[in-house]
Amino acid sequence: MRQPIELLSKAIGYSFNDLGLFENALTHRSAGSVNNERLEFLGDAILGFVVADELYHQFSSANEGQLSRLRSEVVKGEALASLAHELDLGIYLALGVGELRSGGQSRNSILADALEAILAAIYLDGGYEAVRQVILKLFKSRLKRLSLDTQKKDPKTRLQEFLQARKLMLPDYSVVSVEGEQHEQQFCVKCTVEHLQLACEGNGSSRRRAEQESADCMLLQIYKIDEL
Amino acid sequence: MRQPIELLSKAIGYSFNDLGLFENALTHRSAGSVNNERLEFLGDAILGFVVADELYHQFSSANEGQLSRLRSEVVKGEALASLAHELDLGIYLALGVGELRSGGQSRNSILADALEAILAAIYLDGGYEAVRQVILKLFKSRLKRLSLDTQKKDPKTRLQEFLQARKLMLPDYSVVSVEGEQHEQQFCVKCTVEHLQLACEGNGSSRRRAEQESADCMLLQIYKIDEL
Repeated sequence: MRQPIELLSKAIGYSFNDLGLFENALTHRSAGSVNNERLEFLGDAILGFVVADELYHQFSSANEGQLSRLRSEVVKGEALASLAHELDLGIYLALGVGELRSGGQSRNSILADALEAILAAIYLDGGYEAVRQVILKLFKSRLKRLSLDTQKKDPKTRLQEFLQARKLMLPDYSVVSVEGEQHEQQFCVKCTVEHLQLACEGNGSSRRRAEQESADCMLLQIYKIDEL
Repeated sequence: MRQPIELLSKAIGYSFNDLGLFENALTHRSAGSVNNERLEFLGDAILGFVVADELYHQFSSANEGQLSRLRSEVVKGEALASLAHELDLGIYLALGVGELRSGGQSRNSILADALEAILAAIYLDGGYEAVRQVILKLFKSRLKRLSLDTQKKDPKTRLQEFLQARKLMLPDYSVVSVEGEQHEQQFCVKCTVEHLQLACEGNGSSRRRAEQESADCMLLQIYKIDEL
């Protein structure tokens, strides 16, 4: 069942004047000819700029190549999908019957695109400053945990190093589910760190990717706790 | 001889509060460790967003793919270099001795990068609305002449069709100069339309590219005259 979009509005921290724009951003092309594809184009550009601006100031000694790589870590499809999962975006999407049946509401590409479309909708509804604030809030932990040193290491490696440095047991990864047909399977993996009593799920088109996503999610949780 | 940057400031239509930022944007990496590379990263993102925003509104029936192609026509390196040539950007650049000797001040990539860096400098100096206005003014004709129909045709073809439709003689293309060493030659080609008493130069890494650039420049001139 699709959930009322007001709940998502709260999670994002933005109230739309024009709810039609919000609806539009949540409509996948499988659900109609008026869908979120154009908004996604605009949202991608907005996000790219706001994140570039932040990184430019946050990493005052990084060169152009390093800034590009840092940005890609924040705005790449998998990172956006992971944020979309946190927001439970899937349950608010309008999808065609076929996409619904094949689990489109948890497919990373659909979630990432919808998130970008929402950002464009906020921009069109409330202007540049409004969307900038939303982006900075939504991506706060992700921006904060970026570092020039760690950017080359993948999430599983970083999580392992974090735990080893604290003499904690290594995380456990287990497959929760595998959905979809042979050529477009969707894996869900749970990462558990017993000592911290934390568990995180990650999705991806392969077991490896889902594991990395779950480790990334775990790092994010740990980081958020760190922030408190 | 490097020219005083105040002149360029006029051509761009923006007065800097902090001239140091402007200097920074005009400094190629060959001229020092404090150069325009980081600014270029930021400027590229700003330009991408402002142009995406314009195209989103200007082409309300274009789909995502069409919007992407239209944007690329405006922000691709050659298009930026052509605008930089119009602004005579080369004579304001700070270049190292080697780059100066090998004609770096007229190299497309150096010019395009500096133009993006200037946009970032304006953003940092005057804020988002200031840079948006500068971009819209600088790219006005280029944005205006975009069309969904013609985007697939190259400039030479479009210029030929324009002239044929008016029963005018076809343009003449002649090589003005070839500079640089074998592996990075820079061609300059002049396109002349006798009947209109117009001539335009284009630069590029091959004769073909330089011809296309000169045709593009000619189309732009014709379009500007059209606007009057």
